[in-house]
Amino acid sequence: MNDEQQDGLNEFAAFAAQLADEARQISLAYFRRKLEVETKSDESPVTVADREIEARLRARISAHYPAHGILGEEHGRERMDAEYVWVIDPIDGTRSFVTGWPIWGTLFAVLHKGRPVFGLIDAPVTGERWTGGPSGAYDQTSGRLQTSDCRRLATANIYATSPDIFDDAERRIFEEVSRTAGSRRFGGDCYAYAMVAAGHVDAVVEAGLQPYDYLAIVPVVEAAGGRVTDWRGDTVGLGSDGRIIAAATPELHAELLAITRRL
Amino acid sequence: MNDEQQDGLNEFAAFAAQLADEARQISLAYFRRKLEVETKSDESPVTVADREIEARLRARISAHYPAHGILGEEHGRERMDAEYVWVIDPIDGTRSFVTGWPIWGTLFAVLHKGRPVFGLIDAPVTGERWTGGPSGAYDQTSGRLQTSDCRRLATANIYATSPDIFDDAERRIFEEVSRTAGSRRFGGDCYAYAMVAAGHVDAVVEAGLQPYDYLAIVPVVEAAGGRVTDWRGDTVGLGSDGRIIAAATPELHAELLAITRRL
Repeated sequence: MNDEQQDGLNEFAAFAAQLADEARQISLAYFRRKLEVETKSDESPVTVADREIEARLRARISAHYPAHGILGEEHGRERMDAEYVWVIDPIDGTRSFVTGWPIWGTLFAVLHKGRPVFGLIDAPVTGERWTGGPSGAYDQTSGRLQTSDCRRLATANIYATSPDIFDDAERRIFEEVSRTAGSRRFGGDCYAYAMVAAGHVDAVVEAGLQPYDYLAIVPVVEAAGGRVTDWRGDTVGLGSDGRIIAAATPELHAELLAITRRL
Repeated sequence: MNDEQQDGLNEFAAFAAQLADEARQISLAYFRRKLEVETKSDESPVTVADREIEARLRARISAHYPAHGILGEEHGRERMDAEYVWVIDPIDGTRSFVTGWPIWGTLFAVLHKGRPVFGLIDAPVTGERWTGGPSGAYDQTSGRLQTSDCRRLATANIYATSPDIFDDAERRIFEEVSRTAGSRRFGGDCYAYAMVAAGHVDAVVEAGLQPYDYLAIVPVVEAAGGRVTDWRGDTVGLGSDGRIIAAATPELHAELLAITRRL
Protein backbone atom coordinates (compact mmCIF):
# COMPACT_ATOMS: atom_id res chain seq x y z
CA MET A 1 0.00 0.00 0.00
CA ASN A 2 1.48 3.37 -1.02
CA ASP A 3 1.26 6.70 0.85
CA GLU A 4 -1.71 7.93 -1.15
CA GLN A 5 -3.62 4.74 -0.45
CA GLN A 6 -2.68 5.05 3.24
CA ASP A 7 -4.04 8.64 3.36
CA GLY A 8 -7.21 7.43 1.68
CA LEU A 9 -7.56 4.73 4.29
CA ASN A 10 -7.20 7.19 7.15
CA GLU A 11 -9.98 9.22 5.57
CA PHE A 12 -12.14 6.11 5.21
CA ALA A 13 -11.55 5.31 8.88
CA ALA A 14 -12.76 8.76 9.96
CA PHE A 15 -15.80 8.43 7.71
CA ALA A 16 -16.55 4.93 9.02
CA ALA A 17 -16.52 6.31 12.57
CA GLN A 18 -19.19 8.85 11.56
CA LEU A 19 -21.23 6.09 9.95
CA ALA A 20 -20.94 3.96 13.09
CA ASP A 21 -22.16 6.91 15.19
CA GLU A 22 -25.21 7.26 12.94
CA ALA A 23 -25.89 3.53 12.98
CA ARG A 24 -25.77 3.56 16.79
CA GLN A 25 -28.51 6.16 16.99
CA ILE A 26 -30.81 3.99 14.90
CA SER A 27 -29.97 0.64 16.47
CA LEU A 28 -30.23 1.88 20.06
CA ALA A 29 -33.59 3.54 19.31
CA TYR A 30 -34.95 0.10 18.33
CA PHE A 31 -33.10 -1.95 20.97
CA ARG A 32 -35.41 -3.71 23.45
CA ARG A 33 -38.51 -2.36 21.68
CA LYS A 34 -41.16 -4.73 20.35
CA LEU A 35 -40.04 -5.45 16.76
CA GLU A 36 -41.47 -7.62 14.04
CA VAL A 37 -38.81 -10.29 13.38
CA GLU A 38 -38.87 -11.80 9.88
CA THR A 39 -37.08 -15.01 9.05
CA LYS A 40 -35.12 -14.90 5.79
CA SER A 41 -34.63 -17.77 3.37
CA ASP A 42 -31.36 -18.71 5.11
CA GLU A 43 -33.28 -18.91 8.44
CA SER A 44 -31.56 -15.83 9.82
CA PRO A 45 -33.76 -13.16 11.40
CA VAL A 46 -34.04 -9.55 10.20
CA THR A 47 -35.81 -6.52 11.64
CA VAL A 48 -36.72 -3.02 10.52
CA ALA A 49 -33.63 -1.89 12.46
CA ASP A 50 -31.26 -3.92 10.23
CA ARG A 51 -32.89 -2.57 7.09
CA GLU A 52 -33.11 1.05 8.19
CA ILE A 53 -29.47 1.16 9.31
CA GLU A 54 -28.18 -0.39 6.10
CA ALA A 55 -30.31 1.88 3.89
CA ARG A 56 -28.96 4.93 5.74
CA LEU A 57 -25.34 3.77 5.53
CA ARG A 58 -25.58 2.90 1.83
CA ALA A 59 -27.02 6.34 1.05
CA ARG A 60 -24.21 8.04 3.00
CA ILE A 61 -21.47 5.96 1.34
CA SER A 62 -22.90 6.43 -2.17
CA ALA A 63 -23.12 10.20 -1.63
CA HIS A 64 -19.60 10.47 -0.19
CA TYR A 65 -17.78 7.94 -2.39
CA PRO A 66 -19.92 7.50 -5.51
CA ALA A 67 -17.23 5.37 -7.19
CA HIS A 68 -16.99 2.85 -4.35
CA GLY A 69 -18.79 -0.48 -4.33
CA ILE A 70 -21.14 -1.57 -1.53
CA LEU A 71 -22.10 -5.00 -0.25
CA GLY A 72 -24.60 -5.22 2.59
CA GLU A 73 -26.42 -8.02 4.36
CA GLU A 74 -29.93 -6.76 3.63
CA HIS A 75 -29.84 -4.76 0.39
CA GLY A 76 -27.39 -6.64 -1.85
CA ARG A 77 -24.39 -5.53 -3.87
CA GLU A 78 -23.53 -2.67 -6.24
CA ARG A 79 -20.36 -1.64 -8.16
CA MET A 80 -18.52 -4.74 -6.95
CA ASP A 81 -15.80 -4.17 -9.60
CA ALA A 82 -14.81 -0.86 -7.96
CA GLU A 83 -11.26 -0.48 -6.54
CA TYR A 84 -12.76 0.04 -3.07
CA VAL A 85 -15.79 -1.81 -1.79
CA TRP A 86 -17.57 -1.19 1.52
CA VAL A 87 -18.99 -4.27 3.22
CA ILE A 88 -21.66 -3.61 5.83
CA ASP A 89 -23.42 -5.70 8.42
CA PRO A 90 -25.97 -3.34 10.00
CA ILE A 91 -26.59 -5.66 12.95
CA ASP A 92 -24.29 -8.65 13.35
CA GLY A 93 -25.99 -10.80 15.96
CA THR A 94 -29.62 -10.03 15.16
CA ARG A 95 -30.67 -12.96 17.37
CA SER A 96 -28.88 -11.30 20.30
CA PHE A 97 -30.36 -7.92 19.35
CA VAL A 98 -33.96 -9.17 19.35
CA THR A 99 -33.52 -10.97 22.68
CA GLY A 100 -32.19 -7.90 24.47
CA TRP A 101 -28.53 -8.93 24.71
CA PRO A 102 -25.75 -6.32 24.59
CA ILE A 103 -23.28 -8.32 22.46
CA TRP A 104 -24.32 -7.53 18.88
CA GLY A 105 -22.53 -5.06 16.64
CA THR A 106 -22.42 -3.02 13.47
CA LEU A 107 -19.59 -4.04 11.11
CA PHE A 108 -17.75 -2.24 8.33
CA ALA A 109 -14.98 -3.52 6.11
CA VAL A 110 -13.26 -1.60 3.34
CA LEU A 111 -11.90 -3.88 0.60
CA HIS A 112 -9.08 -2.69 -1.66
CA LYS A 113 -9.03 -4.81 -4.81
CA GLY A 114 -10.92 -7.52 -2.93
CA ARG A 115 -8.67 -7.57 0.15
CA PRO A 116 -10.01 -6.29 3.52
CA VAL A 117 -7.70 -3.39 4.46
CA PHE A 118 -9.82 -1.68 7.12
CA GLY A 119 -12.33 -3.05 9.61
CA LEU A 120 -14.56 -1.55 12.29
CA ILE A 121 -16.59 -3.42 14.92
CA ASP A 122 -19.02 -1.25 16.89
CA ALA A 123 -20.87 -2.48 19.99
CA PRO A 124 -23.49 0.20 20.67
CA VAL A 125 -24.87 -1.10 23.99
CA THR A 126 -21.53 -1.27 25.74
CA GLY A 127 -20.25 1.79 23.85
CA GLU A 128 -17.20 -0.12 22.62
CA ARG A 129 -15.57 0.25 19.20
CA TRP A 130 -12.62 -1.65 17.72
CA THR A 131 -10.83 -0.83 14.47
CA GLY A 132 -7.98 -2.33 12.49
CA GLY A 133 -5.94 -1.43 9.43
CA PRO A 134 -2.37 -0.87 8.24
CA SER A 135 -1.71 1.66 11.02
CA GLY A 136 -2.68 -0.79 13.76
CA ALA A 137 -5.62 -2.12 15.75
CA TYR A 138 -7.32 0.03 18.36
CA ASP A 139 -9.94 -0.01 21.04
CA GLN A 140 -11.51 3.43 20.82
CA THR A 141 -11.48 3.75 24.62
CA SER A 142 -8.39 1.98 25.85
CA GLY A 143 -5.92 2.27 23.01
CA ARG A 144 -3.83 -0.26 21.14
CA LEU A 145 -5.13 -3.82 20.78
CA GLN A 146 -2.91 -6.85 21.24
CA THR A 147 -3.93 -10.49 20.98
CA SER A 148 -3.02 -12.93 23.76
CA ASP A 149 0.28 -14.84 23.69
CA CYS A 150 -1.51 -18.23 23.74
CA ARG A 151 0.46 -20.62 21.53
CA ARG A 152 -1.08 -23.97 22.48
CA LEU A 153 -4.62 -25.18 21.93
CA ALA A 154 -4.49 -27.13 25.21
CA THR A 155 -4.39 -23.84 27.13
CA ALA A 156 -6.61 -21.86 24.75
CA ASN A 157 -10.13 -20.64 25.43
CA ILE A 158 -12.11 -20.91 22.21
CA TYR A 159 -15.48 -19.56 21.12
CA ALA A 160 -18.16 -20.19 18.51
CA THR A 161 -21.47 -18.35 18.26
CA SER A 162 -23.49 -21.58 18.57
CA PRO A 163 -23.06 -25.31 17.89
CA ASP A 164 -26.01 -24.82 15.53
CA ILE A 165 -23.88 -22.91 12.96
CA PHE A 166 -22.09 -26.15 11.95
CA ASP A 167 -23.25 -28.89 9.60
CA ASP A 168 -22.55 -32.47 10.72
CA ALA A 169 -19.07 -32.71 9.20
CA GLU A 170 -18.08 -29.27 10.49
CA ARG A 171 -19.43 -30.10 13.93
CA ARG A 172 -17.22 -33.20 14.13
CA ILE A 173 -14.21 -30.98 13.42
CA PHE A 174 -15.34 -28.42 15.99
CA GLU A 175 -15.81 -31.18 18.59
CA GLU A 176 -12.27 -32.36 17.88
CA VAL A 177 -10.98 -28.81 18.33
CA SER A 178 -12.99 -28.57 21.57
CA ARG A 179 -11.61 -31.82 22.99
CA THR A 180 -8.06 -30.45 22.72
CA ALA A 181 -8.85 -26.87 23.74
CA GLY A 182 -8.44 -25.62 27.31
CA SER A 183 -12.09 -24.52 27.34
CA ARG A 184 -14.88 -23.65 24.96
CA ARG A 185 -17.83 -21.32 25.17
CA PHE A 186 -20.69 -20.37 22.89
CA GLY A 187 -22.23 -17.01 22.05
CA GLY A 188 -21.15 -13.76 20.64
CA ASP A 189 -21.01 -13.19 16.87
CA CYS A 190 -18.60 -10.28 16.26
CA TYR A 191 -17.97 -9.77 19.99
CA ALA A 192 -15.90 -12.96 20.17
CA TYR A 193 -13.54 -11.69 17.45
CA ALA A 194 -13.19 -8.32 19.18
CA MET A 195 -12.18 -10.21 22.32
CA VAL A 196 -9.55 -12.13 20.29
CA ALA A 197 -8.12 -8.79 19.13
CA ALA A 198 -8.23 -7.49 22.71
CA GLY A 199 -6.35 -10.50 24.08
CA HIS A 200 -9.15 -12.04 26.20
CA VAL A 201 -10.30 -14.84 23.89
CA ASP A 202 -7.62 -17.03 22.28
CA ALA A 203 -9.46 -18.27 19.20
CA VAL A 204 -12.79 -18.37 17.37
CA VAL A 205 -13.62 -21.29 15.06
CA GLU A 206 -16.82 -20.90 13.05
CA ALA A 207 -18.60 -21.91 9.86
CA GLY A 208 -21.57 -20.75 7.83
CA LEU A 209 -20.50 -17.10 7.91
CA GLN A 210 -21.17 -14.57 5.16
CA PRO A 211 -18.72 -11.96 3.80
CA TYR A 212 -20.43 -9.18 5.82
CA ASP A 213 -19.91 -11.32 8.97
CA TYR A 214 -16.20 -12.05 8.58
CA LEU A 215 -14.54 -9.39 6.40
CA ALA A 216 -14.60 -6.58 8.99
CA ILE A 217 -12.98 -8.74 11.65
CA VAL A 218 -9.92 -9.66 9.53
CA PRO A 219 -8.04 -6.32 9.73
CA VAL A 220 -8.96 -5.88 13.41
CA VAL A 221 -7.66 -9.28 14.54
CA GLU A 222 -4.62 -9.29 12.21
CA ALA A 223 -3.46 -5.77 13.08
CA ALA A 224 -3.68 -6.82 16.75
CA GLY A 225 -1.24 -9.67 16.10
CA GLY A 226 -3.60 -12.55 15.32
CA ARG A 227 -4.21 -14.63 12.23
CA VAL A 228 -7.50 -15.06 10.33
CA THR A 229 -7.94 -17.60 7.53
CA ASP A 230 -10.48 -20.11 6.33
CA TRP A 231 -10.32 -23.74 7.51
CA ARG A 232 -7.83 -24.62 4.74
CA GLY A 233 -5.46 -21.83 5.75
CA ASP A 234 -6.32 -19.55 2.83
CA THR A 235 -6.64 -15.78 3.08
CA VAL A 236 -10.22 -14.65 3.56
CA GLY A 237 -12.00 -12.71 0.81
CA LEU A 238 -15.42 -12.18 -0.74
CA GLY A 239 -15.42 -15.67 -2.20
CA SER A 240 -14.51 -17.61 0.95
CA ASP A 241 -16.70 -20.49 2.04
CA GLY A 242 -17.57 -18.94 5.39
CA ARG A 243 -15.48 -21.30 7.52
CA ILE A 244 -13.27 -19.08 9.66
CA ILE A 245 -10.41 -19.48 12.14
CA ALA A 246 -9.28 -16.42 14.09
CA ALA A 247 -6.36 -17.16 16.41
CA ALA A 248 -4.28 -15.06 18.78
CA THR A 249 -0.89 -16.33 17.52
CA PRO A 250 0.50 -18.04 14.39
CA GLU A 251 1.38 -21.11 16.48
CA LEU A 252 -2.18 -21.50 17.81
CA HIS A 253 -3.51 -20.87 14.31
CA ALA A 254 -1.30 -23.65 12.92
CA GLU A 255 -2.49 -26.11 15.57
CA LEU A 256 -6.14 -25.32 14.81
CA LEU A 257 -5.51 -25.59 11.09
CA ALA A 258 -4.02 -29.06 11.49
CA ILE A 259 -7.46 -30.14 12.76
CA THR A 260 -9.75 -28.10 10.50
CA ARG A 261 -7.87 -29.24 7.38
CA ARG A 262 -9.19 -32.76 8.00
CA LEU A 263 -12.65 -31.62 6.88
CA MET B 1 -45.51 -12.25 54.74
CA ASN B 2 -46.59 -9.76 57.46
CA ASP B 3 -45.89 -5.99 57.57
CA GLU B 4 -42.89 -6.36 59.83
CA GLN B 5 -41.32 -8.93 57.51
CA GLN B 6 -42.10 -6.65 54.53
CA ASP B 7 -40.33 -3.72 56.25
CA GLY B 8 -37.37 -5.98 56.94
CA LEU B 9 -37.25 -6.98 53.30
CA ASN B 10 -37.23 -3.37 52.13
CA GLU B 11 -34.29 -2.78 54.44
CA PHE B 12 -32.53 -5.88 53.07
CA ALA B 13 -33.06 -4.59 49.52
CA ALA B 14 -31.44 -1.25 50.34
CA PHE B 15 -28.54 -3.04 52.02
CA ALA B 16 -28.16 -5.43 49.07
CA ALA B 17 -27.90 -2.44 46.73
CA GLN B 18 -25.00 -1.10 48.82
CA LEU B 19 -23.34 -4.52 48.72
CA ALA B 20 -23.75 -4.68 44.94
CA ASP B 21 -22.14 -1.24 44.61
CA GLU B 22 -19.15 -2.44 46.64
CA ALA B 23 -18.90 -5.67 44.67
CA ARG B 24 -18.88 -3.68 41.41
CA GLN B 25 -15.86 -1.68 42.49
CA ILE B 26 -13.90 -4.87 43.10
CA SER B 27 -15.07 -6.82 40.05
CA LEU B 28 -14.55 -3.95 37.60
CA ALA B 29 -11.05 -3.32 38.97
CA TYR B 30 -10.13 -6.92 38.03
CA PHE B 31 -12.12 -7.10 34.76
CA ARG B 32 -9.93 -7.59 31.66
CA ARG B 33 -6.77 -7.72 33.78
CA LYS B 34 -4.46 -10.73 33.64
CA LEU B 35 -5.77 -13.03 36.38
CA GLU B 36 -4.72 -16.43 37.58
CA VAL B 37 -7.66 -18.74 36.85
CA GLU B 38 -7.92 -21.83 39.07
CA THR B 39 -10.10 -24.79 38.20
CA LYS B 40 -12.14 -26.11 41.12
CA SER B 41 -13.04 -29.75 41.77
CA ASP B 42 -16.35 -29.28 39.87
CA GLU B 43 -14.34 -27.97 36.86
CA SER B 44 -15.64 -24.43 37.30
CA PRO B 45 -13.09 -21.61 37.25
CA VAL B 46 -12.42 -19.19 40.10
CA THR B 47 -10.27 -16.07 40.38
CA VAL B 48 -9.00 -13.77 43.10
CA ALA B 49 -11.86 -11.45 42.09
CA ASP B 50 -14.54 -14.04 43.03
CA ARG B 51 -12.86 -14.70 46.38
CA GLU B 52 -12.19 -11.07 47.28
CA ILE B 53 -15.76 -10.00 46.48
CA GLU B 54 -17.31 -12.81 48.49
CA ALA B 55 -15.02 -12.24 51.48
CA ARG B 56 -15.94 -8.55 51.52
CA LEU B 57 -19.68 -9.22 51.21
CA ARG B 58 -19.66 -11.89 53.93
CA ALA B 59 -17.86 -9.53 56.31
CA ARG B 60 -20.38 -6.76 55.62
CA ILE B 61 -23.40 -9.06 56.05
CA SER B 62 -22.05 -10.62 59.26
CA ALA B 63 -21.39 -7.16 60.72
CA HIS B 64 -24.81 -5.78 59.72
CA TYR B 65 -26.98 -8.85 60.39
CA PRO B 66 -25.00 -11.07 62.78
CA ALA B 67 -27.97 -13.45 63.22
CA HIS B 68 -28.39 -14.11 59.47
CA GLY B 69 -26.99 -17.13 57.71
CA ILE B 70 -24.69 -16.90 54.67
CA LEU B 71 -24.12 -19.27 51.77
CA GLY B 72 -21.56 -18.29 49.14
CA GLU B 73 -20.01 -19.98 46.14
CA GLU B 74 -16.42 -19.68 47.31
CA HIS B 75 -16.38 -19.64 51.11
CA GLY B 76 -19.11 -22.10 52.15
CA ARG B 77 -22.04 -21.86 54.55
CA GLU B 78 -22.62 -20.53 58.06
CA ARG B 79 -25.72 -20.28 60.35
CA MET B 80 -27.87 -22.07 57.77
CA ASP B 81 -30.59 -22.62 60.43
CA ALA B 82 -31.14 -18.84 60.75
CA GLU B 83 -34.55 -17.36 59.83
CA TYR B 84 -32.89 -15.32 57.08
CA VAL B 85 -30.04 -16.60 54.94
CA TRP B 86 -28.10 -14.59 52.33
CA VAL B 87 -26.99 -16.50 49.26
CA ILE B 88 -24.16 -14.92 47.26
CA ASP B 89 -22.57 -15.59 43.92
CA PRO B 90 -19.72 -13.06 43.70
CA ILE B 91 -19.27 -13.60 39.94
CA ASP B 92 -21.89 -15.67 38.14
CA GLY B 93 -20.37 -16.37 34.74
CA THR B 94 -16.69 -16.52 35.72
CA ARG B 95 -15.92 -18.01 32.27
CA SER B 96 -17.41 -14.89 30.67
CA PHE B 97 -15.58 -12.68 33.17
CA VAL B 98 -12.15 -14.15 32.41
CA THR B 99 -12.69 -13.93 28.64
CA GLY B 100 -13.61 -10.24 28.71
CA TRP B 101 -17.35 -10.57 28.11
CA PRO B 102 -19.80 -8.09 29.65
CA ILE B 103 -22.56 -10.58 30.53
CA TRP B 104 -21.55 -11.87 33.97
CA GLY B 105 -23.11 -10.73 37.22
CA THR B 106 -23.09 -10.61 40.99
CA LEU B 107 -26.09 -12.34 42.57
CA PHE B 108 -27.80 -12.03 45.94
CA ALA B 109 -30.78 -13.93 47.27
CA VAL B 110 -32.36 -13.51 50.69
CA LEU B 111 -34.05 -16.67 51.92
CA HIS B 112 -36.80 -16.50 54.58
CA LYS B 113 -37.21 -19.91 56.19
CA GLY B 114 -35.61 -21.47 53.15
CA ARG B 115 -37.73 -19.70 50.55
CA PRO B 116 -36.13 -17.03 48.25
CA VAL B 117 -38.04 -13.80 49.00
CA PHE B 118 -35.66 -11.23 47.53
CA GLY B 119 -33.24 -11.42 44.61
CA LEU B 120 -30.76 -9.03 43.02
CA ILE B 121 -28.87 -9.52 39.73
CA ASP B 122 -26.14 -6.95 39.07
CA ALA B 123 -24.34 -6.61 35.71
CA PRO B 124 -21.41 -4.28 36.43
CA VAL B 125 -20.09 -3.86 32.87
CA THR B 126 -23.38 -2.70 31.40
CA GLY B 127 -24.34 -0.95 34.62
CA GLU B 128 -27.63 -2.84 34.80
CA ARG B 129 -29.32 -4.09 37.97
CA TRP B 130 -32.51 -6.10 38.35
CA THR B 131 -34.33 -6.86 41.62
CA GLY B 132 -37.39 -8.82 42.63
CA GLY B 133 -39.41 -9.39 45.78
CA PRO B 134 -42.93 -9.13 47.19
CA SER B 135 -43.21 -5.47 46.12
CA GLY B 136 -42.42 -6.27 42.48
CA ALA B 137 -39.60 -6.71 40.00
CA TYR B 138 -37.58 -3.73 38.83
CA ASP B 139 -34.89 -2.70 36.42
CA GLN B 140 -32.94 -0.07 38.34
CA THR B 141 -32.81 2.16 35.25
CA SER B 142 -36.04 1.64 33.36
CA GLY B 143 -38.56 0.70 36.05
CA ARG B 144 -40.99 -2.16 36.40
CA LEU B 145 -40.10 -5.52 34.83
CA GLN B 146 -42.66 -7.60 32.95
CA THR B 147 -42.06 -10.95 31.28
CA SER B 148 -43.16 -11.48 27.67
CA ASP B 149 -46.66 -12.77 26.86
CA CYS B 150 -45.26 -15.83 25.02
CA ARG B 151 -47.58 -18.77 25.75
CA ARG B 152 -46.41 -21.32 23.19
CA LEU B 153 -43.06 -23.05 22.91
CA ALA B 154 -43.31 -23.01 19.11
CA THR B 155 -42.96 -19.21 19.15
CA ALA B 156 -40.59 -19.00 22.13
CA ASN B 157 -36.92 -18.04 22.05
CA ILE B 158 -35.11 -20.15 24.62
CA TYR B 159 -31.65 -19.95 26.15
CA ALA B 160 -29.15 -22.12 27.99
CA THR B 161 -25.66 -21.08 29.03
CA SER B 162 -24.02 -23.90 27.05
CA PRO B 163 -24.90 -27.37 25.74
CA ASP B 164 -21.99 -28.50 27.93
CA ILE B 165 -23.97 -27.96 31.16
CA PHE B 166 -26.15 -31.01 30.43
CA ASP B 167 -25.40 -34.71 31.02
CA ASP B 168 -26.49 -37.08 28.24
CA ALA B 169 -30.02 -37.67 29.54
CA GLU B 170 -30.55 -33.96 30.22
CA ARG B 171 -29.20 -33.07 26.78
CA ARG B 172 -31.74 -35.34 25.11
CA ILE B 173 -34.49 -33.45 26.94
CA PHE B 174 -32.98 -30.10 26.00
CA GLU B 175 -32.76 -31.18 22.35
CA GLU B 176 -36.42 -32.12 22.46
CA VAL B 177 -37.28 -28.72 23.94
CA SER B 178 -35.15 -27.08 21.21
CA ARG B 179 -36.87 -28.97 18.37
CA THR B 180 -40.22 -27.53 19.43
CA ALA B 181 -38.98 -24.05 20.35
CA GLY B 182 -39.13 -21.11 17.94
CA SER B 183 -35.38 -20.59 18.35
CA ARG B 184 -32.60 -21.41 20.76
CA ARG B 185 -29.39 -19.66 21.71
CA PHE B 186 -26.51 -20.33 24.07
CA GLY B 187 -24.62 -18.09 26.44
CA GLY B 188 -25.38 -15.93 29.35
CA ASP B 189 -25.55 -17.33 32.87
CA CYS B 190 -27.62 -14.90 34.97
CA TYR B 191 -28.06 -12.49 32.06
CA ALA B 192 -30.49 -14.85 30.33
CA TYR B 193 -32.76 -14.91 33.39
CA ALA B 194 -32.67 -11.12 33.65
CA MET B 195 -33.79 -10.99 30.02
CA VAL B 196 -36.69 -13.35 30.84
CA ALA B 197 -37.76 -10.94 33.61
CA ALA B 198 -37.39 -8.00 31.19
CA GLY B 199 -39.56 -9.64 28.52
CA HIS B 200 -36.89 -10.20 25.84
CA VAL B 201 -36.15 -13.92 26.35
CA ASP B 202 -39.11 -16.28 26.70
CA ALA B 203 -37.54 -19.14 28.63
CA VAL B 204 -34.30 -20.54 30.06
CA VAL B 205 -33.89 -24.30 30.52
CA GLU B 206 -30.73 -25.37 32.35
CA ALA B 207 -29.19 -28.08 34.50
CA GLY B 208 -26.17 -28.47 36.74
CA LEU B 209 -26.82 -25.20 38.59
CA GLN B 210 -25.96 -24.55 42.22
CA PRO B 211 -28.13 -22.75 44.80
CA TYR B 212 -26.04 -19.55 44.46
CA ASP B 213 -26.71 -19.67 40.67
CA TYR B 214 -30.49 -20.06 40.74
CA LEU B 215 -31.90 -18.71 44.04
CA ALA B 216 -31.42 -15.00 43.25
CA ILE B 217 -33.19 -15.28 39.91
CA VAL B 218 -36.40 -16.81 41.35
CA PRO B 219 -37.88 -13.64 42.95
CA VAL B 220 -36.79 -11.48 39.99
CA VAL B 221 -38.44 -13.65 37.32
CA GLU B 222 -41.52 -14.50 39.40
CA ALA B 223 -42.27 -10.93 40.50
CA ALA B 224 -42.03 -9.98 36.80
CA GLY B 225 -44.81 -12.44 35.97
CA GLY B 226 -42.81 -15.56 35.09
CA ARG B 227 -42.55 -18.99 36.66
CA VAL B 228 -39.41 -20.71 37.97
CA THR B 229 -39.35 -24.36 39.06
CA ASP B 230 -37.18 -27.42 38.71
CA TRP B 231 -37.72 -29.87 35.83
CA ARG B 232 -40.39 -31.74 37.85
CA GLY B 233 -42.36 -28.56 38.49
CA ASP B 234 -41.35 -28.25 42.13
CA THR B 235 -40.59 -24.95 43.83
CA VAL B 236 -36.89 -24.17 43.89
CA GLY B 237 -35.00 -24.14 47.18
CA LEU B 238 -31.61 -24.88 48.71
CA GLY B 239 -32.06 -28.61 48.19
CA SER B 240 -33.07 -28.52 44.50
CA ASP B 241 -31.20 -30.68 42.02
CA GLY B 242 -30.03 -27.72 39.91
CA ARG B 243 -32.30 -28.38 36.92
CA ILE B 244 -34.18 -25.14 36.30
CA ILE B 245 -36.96 -23.88 34.05
CA ALA B 246 -37.67 -20.15 33.98
CA ALA B 247 -40.57 -19.24 31.71
CA ALA B 248 -42.33 -16.01 30.81
CA THR B 249 -45.87 -17.34 31.34
CA PRO B 250 -47.56 -20.22 33.21
CA GLU B 251 -48.71 -21.67 29.86
CA LEU B 252 -45.19 -21.74 28.41
CA HIS B 253 -43.91 -23.15 31.69
CA ALA B 254 -46.47 -25.98 31.53
CA GLU B 255 -45.49 -26.85 27.96
CA LEU B 256 -41.79 -26.98 28.91
CA LEU B 257 -42.57 -29.04 31.97
CA ALA B 258 -44.44 -31.62 29.90
CA ILE B 259 -41.11 -32.30 28.15
CA THR B 260 -38.67 -31.98 31.07
CA ARG B 261 -40.79 -34.34 33.23
CA ARG B 262 -39.87 -37.18 30.86
CA LEU B 263 -36.32 -37.18 32.28
